[in-house]
Amino acid sequence: MSDKLTSSKDKILFTPGPLTTSRTVKQAMLRDLGSRDFEFIQTVADIRARLVQLAGVSPNDYAAIILQGSGTYALEAVISSTIPPDGKLLVIINGAYGRRTEAIAKTHKIPNVALTYPEDTQPDLAQIEAMLAADRAITDVAVVHCETTSGILNPIEAIGALVKKAGRRYFVDAMSSFGAVPLNLAESAIDYLVTSSNKCIEGVPGFGIILVKRATLLQTEGYARTISLNLLAQWQGLEKDGQFRFTPPTHTLLAFHQALIELEAEGGIAARAARYRANHDALIAGMSALGFETYLKLADQSYIITSFRYPKHPNFSFERFYKALNDKGYVIYPGKVGSADCFRIGTIGRIFPSDVRDLLSAIRETITEMGMC
Amino acid sequence: MSDKLTSSKDKILFTPGPLTTSRTVKQAMLRDLGSRDFEFIQTVADIRARLVQLAGVSPNDYAAIILQGSGTYALEAVISSTIPPDGKLLVIINGAYGRRTEAIAKTHKIPNVALTYPEDTQPDLAQIEAMLAADRAITDVAVVHCETTSGILNPIEAIGALVKKAGRRYFVDAMSSFGAVPLNLAESAIDYLVTSSNKCIEGVPGFGIILVKRATLLQTEGYARTISLNLLAQWQGLEKDGQFRFTPPTHTLLAFHQALIELEAEGGIAARAARYRANHDALIAGMSALGFETYLKLADQSYIITSFRYPKHPNFSFERFYKALNDKGYVIYPGKVGSADCFRIGTIGRIFPSDVRDLLSAIRETITEMGMC
Repeated sequence: MSDKLTSSKDKILFTPGPLTTSRTVKQAMLRDLGSRDFEFIQTVADIRARLVQLAGVSPNDYAAIILQGSGTYALEAVISSTIPPDGKLLVIINGAYGRRTEAIAKTHKIPNVALTYPEDTQPDLAQIEAMLAADRAITDVAVVHCETTSGILNPIEAIGALVKKAGRRYFVDAMSSFGAVPLNLAESAIDYLVTSSNKCIEGVPGFGIILVKRATLLQTEGYARTISLNLLAQWQGLEKDGQFRFTPPTHTLLAFHQALIELEAEGGIAARAARYRANHDALIAGMSALGFETYLKLADQSYIITSFRYPKHPNFSFERFYKALNDKGYVIYPGKVGSADCFRIGTIGRIFPSDVRDLLSAIRETITEMGMC
Repeated sequence: MSDKLTSSKDKILFTPGPLTTSRTVKQAMLRDLGSRDFEFIQTVADIRARLVQLAGVSPNDYAAIILQGSGTYALEAVISSTIPPDGKLLVIINGAYGRRTEAIAKTHKIPNVALTYPEDTQPDLAQIEAMLAADRAITDVAVVHCETTSGILNPIEAIGALVKKAGRRYFVDAMSSFGAVPLNLAESAIDYLVTSSNKCIEGVPGFGIILVKRATLLQTEGYARTISLNLLAQWQGLEKDGQFRFTPPTHTLLAFHQALIELEAEGGIAARAARYRANHDALIAGMSALGFETYLKLADQSYIITSFRYPKHPNFSFERFYKALNDKGYVIYPGKVGSADCFRIGTIGRIFPSDVRDLLSAIRETITEMGMC
């Protein structure tokens, strides 16, 4: 676990992605394969099969769809091509990514309603249950698993149980959690789950991934409001002859295939979760020792990304702090919550507790330079 | 010009893309840069500036927008986010890519009308002029530059002059020609031109490129019918702080930057056009000597990709032919025209006349094996 395969010349990325990836993942891109080439088609089929396996479900019930573009495109594909013309979406919001789902629904003029919570607060299950009982027009429910805005982890299993009981479709944005947080899609009653190539599977950016319940997807004929983001058509293309409707990012897919092999070699989701948790534990202990406070209560906090409040010291300037760490070779991330001044540190990607300790040393040095201790 | 930088283990791609790229272009992807990193932002700015320069126009009048996804996404971005609610699109069609533009307009319920020609026939300029005069509701005109369906090159300058005279907006799908066919956007009165990362600039697949006339784009506020493919918002994001609204394909962009440097080193568009033309000339001469006939008249034929009719010999089977060439290390492409049985051979990408001659030897060998001569 201590082997570091990252390129020596690159800064280490403590961000929500693009992430630091292994050198071998990047080296997989040193080939030009035709998009109709037999080897490429086999690689895509293997990627799709491995993704369904990672989701803990049967390929008879679920399928993996790869969609060119960023994760947001995959999000928009689900919203814009699976909700029927007479559908209505309930969005559960406690951060910017929940708000983005709502914005997509509004742009496509899909009737929608939101349950909005403060960015440091878990959704209220009783309220969700009551809303589903009261508003019979709601056909679909969307929630974000790990809200990267704050780093909060939402209770998608408990929400899934309520959605299932109420007989609605369930969509989970698991962009920054899939591959690192153990999850069974069938047990959580998930119809659609979205993630992307450059998150916890540790590939490079270039496409989104949608895990779909086949029976649900098959009912969406004619619902798509675009051509490029037509989820059913994308799936039908891949099922027909293993090819994409439109030019796929061949190199990015080769990197992702290698990343899946390395995830398996590491010991699968459980082992990756353990490494990320160890990264996170090292970060929390070290930052606390340096006097930094987390934005969230630890009980609500994921081991994916953590928001830290700006220190109250008058010498603190985020711009100086960020630049000094960057110059030392460590890339952290600005904050995104609306209610507090924070910065964020991610603990995912091809990084290890030793990297986190190096970052902590650099932070100690930086706040000393800034005259803060 | 004779140095071959391609990986020795890969087959040579005689396709419309993804293409064979130089080894140095692929090696540029061996880095993980943060998407908010200063170096990455500078790289994106340099890519955008070089693209405007390639278009032969001033950065005061035109801008380059990079959009995650395949080229079709960029096409859909233009159609779905620049045509006003009361607009009407005239699509000039002589192949599958013209039909795709029409399909996008229909999906977004944008009023549209088509002038359709056989796949081996140039559009009728007088008919276009008459249509623009007769139908005052038409606000936008779309045409494909090189129709990859057949390989035909459409007269975009002459059509542009008619569109300009009629005071309409002009959109050119130059997916497989930009970077290899000399072109001045301002002289052709082009408002929007679309290409992609994996065509004649010889990058790897992962994003589309839209060259826009600034004054035209600025009038499109509120027209976007999606979030991901909102062209104005994408441009505004890039102009504001050089960053993308959504995670960019960082590695693909590093490869593309290297590809632009290599295009300049080769001598720019004129030199690349000369190499592709030499590839094409070698192909036409060799194939003709082997008894193959082109689908198009030579006068209409681009040097990008060429459709060849299936030989009439009873022993010919495209599947066998394709497989035999593939086993020898040469990837050709199936046909796409509706009116004749054809296959296609591309002459773009990091390939040289010597590669074409190697392909011709393999074709000679293959038809001998098939008992066709």
